[in-house]
Amino acid sequence: MVKAKVYIYTNPFDGFPKTGDLTIVEEELRPLKDGEFLAEAEYLSVDPYMRGYAASFKPGTTIIGGQIALIRESKNPNFPVGKYCFGQFGWRTHTISNGLPDTKDNLKMAQYVLPDLKGLPPSLGLGVLGMTGNTAYFGLLEICNPKPGETVAISGAAGAVGSHVGQIAKLKGCKVIGIAGSDDKGKWLTDELKFDHFINYKTQDVRKALREVAAKGIDCYFDNVGGELSSTILHNMNLFGRISVCGAISAYNDKQPPKVTAVQAAVVMKQLKMEGFVVSRWHDKWMEGINHNQQWILDGKIKYRETITDGFENMFQAFTDMLKGVNYGKAIVRVKTLIK
Amino acid sequence: MVKAKVYIYTNPFDGFPKTGDLTIVEEELRPLKDGEFLAEAEYLSVDPYMRGYAASFKPGTTIIGGQIALIRESKNPNFPVGKYCFGQFGWRTHTISNGLPDTKDNLKMAQYVLPDLKGLPPSLGLGVLGMTGNTAYFGLLEICNPKPGETVAISGAAGAVGSHVGQIAKLKGCKVIGIAGSDDKGKWLTDELKFDHFINYKTQDVRKALREVAAKGIDCYFDNVGGELSSTILHNMNLFGRISVCGAISAYNDKQPPKVTAVQAAVVMKQLKMEGFVVSRWHDKWMEGINHNQQWILDGKIKYRETITDGFENMFQAFTDMLKGVNYGKAIVRVKTLIK
Repeated sequence: MVKAKVYIYTNPFDGFPKTGDLTIVEEELRPLKDGEFLAEAEYLSVDPYMRGYAASFKPGTTIIGGQIALIRESKNPNFPVGKYCFGQFGWRTHTISNGLPDTKDNLKMAQYVLPDLKGLPPSLGLGVLGMTGNTAYFGLLEICNPKPGETVAISGAAGAVGSHVGQIAKLKGCKVIGIAGSDDKGKWLTDELKFDHFINYKTQDVRKALREVAAKGIDCYFDNVGGELSSTILHNMNLFGRISVCGAISAYNDKQPPKVTAVQAAVVMKQLKMEGFVVSRWHDKWMEGINHNQQWILDGKIKYRETITDGFENMFQAFTDMLKGVNYGKAIVRVKTLIK
Repeated sequence: MVKAKVYIYTNPFDGFPKTGDLTIVEEELRPLKDGEFLAEAEYLSVDPYMRGYAASFKPGTTIIGGQIALIRESKNPNFPVGKYCFGQFGWRTHTISNGLPDTKDNLKMAQYVLPDLKGLPPSLGLGVLGMTGNTAYFGLLEICNPKPGETVAISGAAGAVGSHVGQIAKLKGCKVIGIAGSDDKGKWLTDELKFDHFINYKTQDVRKALREVAAKGIDCYFDNVGGELSSTILHNMNLFGRISVCGAISAYNDKQPPKVTAVQAAVVMKQLKMEGFVVSRWHDKWMEGINHNQQWILDGKIKYRETITDGFENMFQAFTDMLKGVNYGKAIVRVKTLIK
């Protein structure tokens, strides 16, 4: 009998998530039916969207989320034993799945066996070679469509998605401005990832800083945070600028969205196009993003960083640290107590 | 010697425009050069964008704007004497033009001889058969792309553009919700223009009203006003909703854009697409819009209304009345003291 540990949404988040809002319970798993497989989590993802979607969570249900899991048993030929899969199974150690998307999960992510990672670690299937990498790839290229010579600004620039977006924009010949909340993050972005400029939104006057580093205005803005910062950037964009709205982490913990400077006057005068997205909309060409990102990594053109927390029992801590912006690059949890 | 009367931007608008901000001066016009023509204004347009662009006006220059003018003299075969033309000449009675767009005007509108109006009055060349009509036509169809059965909300619904947008949306098989600031306007929208619902944003709780009249959510939003109203609507939109941002009249007279509820969380969760536009971007297919609107009017499928102010000297009053929302449909000024 396999027992799963599962995080249950117990007390609805009231502002910033608190210890006790989630409870870990044990769940006995039944035997597999035809078409099903048993997957054991090795790496679990913590992402801003989990807080963003919390308003739609029902108390008593499992927190949504993706994981890289080893297939332990299988009655589904598409998910063979011994392979790693990506599963949008939620915050749980063991899962019986039939491979189909969870219709109760807003992301509607398909489960799939990881492609050949060519020696790269399987944890990347949550980051640069998974949802995060595809969020950067499709979210930037499909919505912003940046042209060589254009200026691309990115908020949440040191996060998993932002740090990846900036590097793709550099590969496309753009000038890249990263915005984040610590000079140490900025140093990483400019020194290692070769962003052209960094703005610390906590210590600098962003409007003034933009006038210096983006004197010709901003053509594309990849928005991970929302809030007043995004209003400031929209008011400094060029004619026909494009805004890819990936997240609004600055607002997820507020009971009401914040009051910020209205963006409509800038949107109309500069004829801006702003589009929000959830990455699963590109499920039809999912592997295109993964393949491109993988090649760039193998060629040394894209660098990545993971912030790893050990222990399933520390997942809530990893989640709240990520919401506070403690992480560099992708925040993941490594499950250590595997049933071998 | 022809003398033109011209409105000069004298004191930069500080909040709502005040008497004395503009001055009427007389200007003696020189003889025509080859390629030029002399046009005498018969109808002048007052539009919200004139306030919106004021931040870019230089004191001492003519206020921008369109007019329907009679061609009085011509050394340009494309602009023959006796024809009516649309000219983006600014607030002036007589103009020498070479027919090319004014590069100092943000709209970059081309001048053109009015097409055969098939008996309809030439003043419509400023409204339903001109920039306003094309703003409604292209702004709705190209950006919102409404499908039969979808719900379309329109702010500034009793204005020149809004009242036209709603009728096109009805022709496309949509449910139409008009939002404006008086019950009398609402009566016109629902009784005469056959909008499905009306919300008075001044007297009703818009969020609550939307829950009643758009219980299935809003698919398309044509935004003429911006401000908190638009934030409320964006938070009530459906997945993959489209927002056409035509104007932000609620903010044009503010020294700073207002603080409103941030929209990014809604934009990302619902994967909304918001795009601002200036109608001259569709200059390549300008006549397509005019021809469609004309046919709909001739077929009795689109109704229009004009709010006409007599006298060039009353143009400032017409402008501020329009900014206050006094007008139904298109606000225009008729020049009565023509040099015959």
